[in-house]
Amino acid sequence: MKLIRYGQAGKEKIGVILNGVRYDTSAYGGDYNEKFFEDNGLARLEEFVKANQGRLIEVPDSERLGSPVARPSKIVCIGLNYAKHAQETNAKIPEEPILFFKSTTALVGPDDDIIIPKNSTKTDWEVELALVIGKKASYVSEEEAMDYVAGYCLHNDVSEREFQLERGGTWDKGKGCDTFAPVGPFLATTDEIDDVHKLRLWLKLNGKVLQDGNTDDLIFGIPTLVSYLSQFMTLLPGDIISTGTPAGVGLGFNPPFYLKPGDVVELGIDGLGSARQVVKAYAKD
Amino acid sequence: MKLIRYGQAGKEKIGVILNGVRYDTSAYGGDYNEKFFEDNGLARLEEFVKANQGRLIEVPDSERLGSPVARPSKIVCIGLNYAKHAQETNAKIPEEPILFFKSTTALVGPDDDIIIPKNSTKTDWEVELALVIGKKASYVSEEEAMDYVAGYCLHNDVSEREFQLERGGTWDKGKGCDTFAPVGPFLATTDEIDDVHKLRLWLKLNGKVLQDGNTDDLIFGIPTLVSYLSQFMTLLPGDIISTGTPAGVGLGFNPPFYLKPGDVVELGIDGLGSARQVVKAYAKD
Repeated sequence: MKLIRYGQAGKEKIGVILNGVRYDTSAYGGDYNEKFFEDNGLARLEEFVKANQGRLIEVPDSERLGSPVARPSKIVCIGLNYAKHAQETNAKIPEEPILFFKSTTALVGPDDDIIIPKNSTKTDWEVELALVIGKKASYVSEEEAMDYVAGYCLHNDVSEREFQLERGGTWDKGKGCDTFAPVGPFLATTDEIDDVHKLRLWLKLNGKVLQDGNTDDLIFGIPTLVSYLSQFMTLLPGDIISTGTPAGVGLGFNPPFYLKPGDVVELGIDGLGSARQVVKAYAKD
Repeated sequence: MKLIRYGQAGKEKIGVILNGVRYDTSAYGGDYNEKFFEDNGLARLEEFVKANQGRLIEVPDSERLGSPVARPSKIVCIGLNYAKHAQETNAKIPEEPILFFKSTTALVGPDDDIIIPKNSTKTDWEVELALVIGKKASYVSEEEAMDYVAGYCLHNDVSEREFQLERGGTWDKGKGCDTFAPVGPFLATTDEIDDVHKLRLWLKLNGKVLQDGNTDDLIFGIPTLVSYLSQFMTLLPGDIISTGTPAGVGLGFNPPFYLKPGDVVELGIDGLGSARQVVKAYAKD
């Protein structure tokens, strides 16, 4: 199944994509949130969709998409999980996963604008494979880890490098600005993806391919990450885990360069669709 | 006003403390969560309490207390915000606030057990003053910052030092284990505290005072922290910001020593009450 959330930001309705067409599933009730995944919502939604096929109302392609998952309890990200990206940022290849948090207020839709924060000169891009937790995970083994994954999404782990690296303390400072987590276009349930460790992922800036990697280069794969994280904190249904970015970020160029107003970022992953974000300067509403 | 949440973990009811006596306020409706603070809940609760005084039902002191704030969108903590604590951990005094996240799944009541995580040998204590955000804060100035604070709580920022410092990456790995954020006994609204920058805070381990500080030693005070954080992420109503710990943590002793099963941690802050946590080993339920 492919799940979407669409409509006005903050008031998204739920839907699915069937054979490339978007349909509204509001009648199922609720939202794609912690409670949905916790209550076996994926299986129940599938039944609902089967029972109502032919009666579901089409959603025009002109409708804005939100994040396919409602605001989760946390967005945990993995740093330096592709060897070449670690090299381009002059970092060592990690011996165990590096984790950091994004403030969940950063979450936006896949085609929403990226807002360069006030006082930012180093806003950067990072195409990533994100996974969504399907059930509460604490001290899960690698062998059972995949049972805790509901599905996958495309994610741009937008990062402010000065805030992240030059302002003291942990990376979290440069990861959670508003609009720094465009997720979507859709959540693909695990059965939609043949081999999650063999997906091409790419990112273009103003039409030029800057990132072009494959999840077969992940240093730590999905089962390892889910198991590992669950040793340090309880993962809740609906939590988003982003698995790291391949080489080609602005910080990695010589000299580095970053996003500026008017730039267009496009990104995609095999089987998880593509997204397009226009970069804007911060302006008080 | 002093707000409490009480009853079974995960099913807490809401209440207030009036003249040292706990009263149920369930009839007010809802929970002390993001929506409550967002909807001007503090002022409305005060009216409700006034209108119902004499009719409120007393809550026995035997009832368990939960965190006075329901699970927030985030728990952001400040590191090394007391000079002597920075020294004891061999860290430099920071030039600007250091921030990190606690997984919100770490949140528990003030007198709940602290569970030492699996494979932990360095679980440590940190008495802290926490503040609770009252309204959405983005790019707030220091001058207006206090308008965004709903109140204050006592918090033990329990920390696993090996996970935090020796396992690669950011501090977040050692801060968000289950039970690592006992908060309470109550939320005191700002009007209850004369000078938040002149509060003694202390922590005893097995009856012996190990931390004894005062918020007048904070390197970065409350207005600075709220304003600073709001430059990097949007703070939401109900978010918990913990302001750092004074000297006297286990890591700071020579040799360092840490919590073990059976230990009793007691902690308190002037005007914000005290808490008592028994340390237990992890045992699968």
